[in-house]
Amino acid sequence: MTTGKINVSVENIFPLIKKFLYNDHEIFLRELISNGTDATLKLKHLTNIGEAKVEYGNPILEVKIDKEGKKLHIIDQGIGMTSEEVEKYINQLAFSGAEEFLEKYKDTAKDSGIIGHFGLGFYSAFMVASKVEIITKSYKDEPAAHWICDGSPEFSLEPADKTTRGTEIILHIAEDSLEFLEEHKIKELLNKYNKFMPIPIKFGTKTETLPKPEDAPEDYVSETVEVDNIINNPNPAWTKQPTDLNEEDYKTFYHELYPMQFEEPLFNIHLNVDYPFNLTGILYFPKLGSDMQIQKDKIQLYQNQVFVTDNVEGIVPEFLMMLRGVVDSPDIPLNVSRSGLQADGAVKKISNYITRKVADKLKSLFNENRADFESKWNDIKIVLEYGMLSEDKFYEKAGAFVLYPTVNDKYFTLDELKENLKDTQTDKDGKLVILYAGNKEAQHAYIETAEEKGYQVLLLDSPIISHLIQKIENDNKDVTFVRVDSDHIDNLIKKDETTISKLSEDEQTNLKTAVESVINKQTYTVQLESLDSQAAPFIITQPEFMRRMKEMSQTGGGGMFGMGNMPEMYNLVVNTNSPLASTILSTEDKTTQESLVKQALDLAKLSQNLLKGEALTAFVKRSFDLIK
Amino acid sequence: MTTGKINVSVENIFPLIKKFLYNDHEIFLRELISNGTDATLKLKHLTNIGEAKVEYGNPILEVKIDKEGKKLHIIDQGIGMTSEEVEKYINQLAFSGAEEFLEKYKDTAKDSGIIGHFGLGFYSAFMVASKVEIITKSYKDEPAAHWICDGSPEFSLEPADKTTRGTEIILHIAEDSLEFLEEHKIKELLNKYNKFMPIPIKFGTKTETLPKPEDAPEDYVSETVEVDNIINNPNPAWTKQPTDLNEEDYKTFYHELYPMQFEEPLFNIHLNVDYPFNLTGILYFPKLGSDMQIQKDKIQLYQNQVFVTDNVEGIVPEFLMMLRGVVDSPDIPLNVSRSGLQADGAVKKISNYITRKVADKLKSLFNENRADFESKWNDIKIVLEYGMLSEDKFYEKAGAFVLYPTVNDKYFTLDELKENLKDTQTDKDGKLVILYAGNKEAQHAYIETAEEKGYQVLLLDSPIISHLIQKIENDNKDVTFVRVDSDHIDNLIKKDETTISKLSEDEQTNLKTAVESVINKQTYTVQLESLDSQAAPFIITQPEFMRRMKEMSQTGGGGMFGMGNMPEMYNLVVNTNSPLASTILSTEDKTTQESLVKQALDLAKLSQNLLKGEALTAFVKRSFDLIK
Repeated sequence: MTTGKINVSVENIFPLIKKFLYNDHEIFLRELISNGTDATLKLKHLTNIGEAKVEYGNPILEVKIDKEGKKLHIIDQGIGMTSEEVEKYINQLAFSGAEEFLEKYKDTAKDSGIIGHFGLGFYSAFMVASKVEIITKSYKDEPAAHWICDGSPEFSLEPADKTTRGTEIILHIAEDSLEFLEEHKIKELLNKYNKFMPIPIKFGTKTETLPKPEDAPEDYVSETVEVDNIINNPNPAWTKQPTDLNEEDYKTFYHELYPMQFEEPLFNIHLNVDYPFNLTGILYFPKLGSDMQIQKDKIQLYQNQVFVTDNVEGIVPEFLMMLRGVVDSPDIPLNVSRSGLQADGAVKKISNYITRKVADKLKSLFNENRADFESKWNDIKIVLEYGMLSEDKFYEKAGAFVLYPTVNDKYFTLDELKENLKDTQTDKDGKLVILYAGNKEAQHAYIETAEEKGYQVLLLDSPIISHLIQKIENDNKDVTFVRVDSDHIDNLIKKDETTISKLSEDEQTNLKTAVESVINKQTYTVQLESLDSQAAPFIITQPEFMRRMKEMSQTGGGGMFGMGNMPEMYNLVVNTNSPLASTILSTEDKTTQESLVKQALDLAKLSQNLLKGEALTAFVKRSFDLIK
Repeated sequence: MTTGKINVSVENIFPLIKKFLYNDHEIFLRELISNGTDATLKLKHLTNIGEAKVEYGNPILEVKIDKEGKKLHIIDQGIGMTSEEVEKYINQLAFSGAEEFLEKYKDTAKDSGIIGHFGLGFYSAFMVASKVEIITKSYKDEPAAHWICDGSPEFSLEPADKTTRGTEIILHIAEDSLEFLEEHKIKELLNKYNKFMPIPIKFGTKTETLPKPEDAPEDYVSETVEVDNIINNPNPAWTKQPTDLNEEDYKTFYHELYPMQFEEPLFNIHLNVDYPFNLTGILYFPKLGSDMQIQKDKIQLYQNQVFVTDNVEGIVPEFLMMLRGVVDSPDIPLNVSRSGLQADGAVKKISNYITRKVADKLKSLFNENRADFESKWNDIKIVLEYGMLSEDKFYEKAGAFVLYPTVNDKYFTLDELKENLKDTQTDKDGKLVILYAGNKEAQHAYIETAEEKGYQVLLLDSPIISHLIQKIENDNKDVTFVRVDSDHIDNLIKKDETTISKLSEDEQTNLKTAVESVINKQTYTVQLESLDSQAAPFIITQPEFMRRMKEMSQTGGGGMFGMGNMPEMYNLVVNTNSPLASTILSTEDKTTQESLVKQALDLAKLSQNLLKGEALTAFVKRSFDLIK
């Protein structure tokens, strides 16, 4: 038996790293700026603990394009490296100086914000550069060093005459990557990845107008001056304590995050937790309305103020994906698939924490200012209703703040609804019947009839509402939801009263025959009812169960298989006590009787939005003729 | 100056590879099966060219779970390795044996289908295994070798007593990866990544019933037998020549690809090109209808029959993303961002090739069987219309097959439309006016009026149609599209005829005053017209320009900024020659006159679907009262 060590040669590994270290070549700039930031934060830490006896000052990073020379410079004023350190940290692939630093200073440096991890970031420079130079001067009293590597694994290292502290990286941009010499491209990348990094980043200069002096003469001409153009905000709102921020600060940060977003957010949720994981962030509820549009301004994920992605699938609970804002956590594993994320225990905890914080915030908003909460309801309901359906933990808490509005803009919680309706809307079997409409306009006639009886009608118009009421009925066996047009109101909430039919059985049979001879029996089932004589003579209804199952199978995930494609079927309720019923019966001329039934059916169809196309055109013509 | 070579130590690199080689740990199985496939294809090649003097036979791969031993076995019957080869290929990280093989046999092995590239795939085993063993016997007459590595970079290598050709990989699954010992999980992975790989893959056995012998006795009991359960189809349709396949074969493959898809595809497009890039594949047009639903069965991307992803963004033109099928190309760079893909010249060529092939296929379908093409139009139009808007190259070809259906299901190309309508629908200024409806039912009255004049009305009901007709008008200055309800038909296609008004100017003023006193002037503008006396007395119209701009800004990307939120505004066309106009004028009682105007307005609203809610309920009640 032989033993040995697996062997890796830099000649094999280097080309792979150059090509495939990151899916996206543009990442190199984020990596190099992260390194510069780490170099600065390390110096800060060492001066803080007294180990570096130098002035920390106000160090910045600088990014500079030399278009003619085809070079890109990234310059920091951080800790710098001696020749020996270059040998150690740069010439050894995948050796992480940041990890070593954190290990060495683990007692004090835990919250220093240092980003580095794997010791590979620097090499991402070779994804876009044919040659890379490092000119670096340590904070220690040692000569500067100049390292050059042309992308072969060979390097050279010699002393340099740099006298100021810090590191300058010079990328000789490769021919296939010249886009990274364009100002707009670098600006775009800085804005995407580095907008909230903790050290100021200079990219060019800008002109600023000096303030007018107090003793300025009347003919004072304003003076301008060139100043550094700092592209980032090193102290974004989410890194601060909630107690140090007011409403205005949150709104300002929202617009900083989404400069193209002109509407104000409805409210925000500040996330801030240390244990058992580290997470900060601010989530915003935008105005959503009831239709889900394609979303451009998504929640952004950061790690130590470095932008990572705006795909937070698996980290933020699905029902909150329509929110906006920032989540910053060093504890989220990044090189893991989405399904891996969902299985990851730490990530699951983060997701649960976010759900809980959102529920708590909603509850306190509801309790603190209910009127305001009600006024925002239509803009947030889609998120909350979807949350109730998809997250059991959220569903459990939702009772405290989820609202059920009536068509007259009164808002009830489910408990209030039960309390308020139990006297009037409990049927003879003891069930509480909750009436609702899906559309105030389209179901107006039915709502009016219900209200005339003294009933409340909810307006539930979200696309997923049929799934939600199905769930609520399952958990509240004494409650049933019925849409207001699913039967005549006296049948929806059955009381013990019975109205006696004015018609004899024979007359009823004749009436039924007369109606059935005109209508399409595949679509309409005639249902004779002895209602109040003032009630509408013909009413078209659609049974709740069928309609709901159809809706559920159309919006996906629920209902009954294939129900979505069933033909529409309706009941035609004929009020035997209406004067029109008597008129129809007593009309002897067959043609006149038929046209009476037809006209009545057309009117019932109109109320249910079923009179369309040719039938509607004919109806309108007939009606114009009547009045001309 | 010192020079040197960048140094990489296996101790630093190995942990990175174990954790981060792939985003998704499950990829290990795909990689190991790809290696086994390569080993088999190499043997095939060497026997083909006579370099290996052994029988190729019918080699298979096998995947076996040993749940108790917590082991997963991947066994091939391929080329195998000698001890020296293990030393060379396994103990050296990132040294690709496949590349070396292709280099060595480059004259003959170009199309051998060998997959490997970077020499890293094998190490992905360590993402899920705490210990990995290789037992391998070369096709050469040398003893077998047994390699063991426990995840530290240390390995041991000794002779083994394996006598059959090929390689067995044994993974000792790590505690955090035990899911990969579940049969259903492995089945799922095999089905996802290896379903169409070129060497048969055995996973377990299954029971098969033997065919009944010809001389079977009457009381014959069917016999069963255990056979290998082969999970893949090594010769999927897209690897064959189009001439070797018939319609049925394509359909069968469709269902193989999407077992949960019960509907038949409408037609397919076989992709097959060698130069300047290598690409095969089959795309299917499914039935789409006019609404775009969330898509589960996407186009799948393969490389040498290995599944890569079902995200083909950037590779397949965006307007074809709703299609289904397979694209297989070894030439698509995978570790590149989507924006990188879009900038990649080779990928751009692939995308253009696909666009051209689709356009050619559509043209030939149209030419070969126009009736059949027309019958499919409504199921494919959304893709084609979107393609015309988003891809200029497609737009240029679209004239040859894109159809414009009338409300009566006649189908015209744009050229045919011009030819057919020019005599009847050219207005007095020489413009060809194309009338269209967005909804046959809702605009029925207007369509009927247009048809009575002998005009053709198109039915254009896609959500993006306003963008498309805008584009067509831009490119065809002599053509204008107007929706049939955007004005009275005589104003839409203006001819030289004039109808004389029966009313005097004074009467017209009085009529206008009477109408305006009743209607909401913010919403309706009264427009007196002397039309045919038989035409409708009141007609509500909505000007084309306003409506189209609104629609365009609502469906995004076009129209005028902010138009989407403008209030709806209509014209109320009053026919001064209608009997009703005279009746209104001659009615002296103010209340009666008002209720006449109101009823006429309600009827006009009904025709334009504008009578809703309370107003509709009141109208229906009034109408019931009229007939009771």
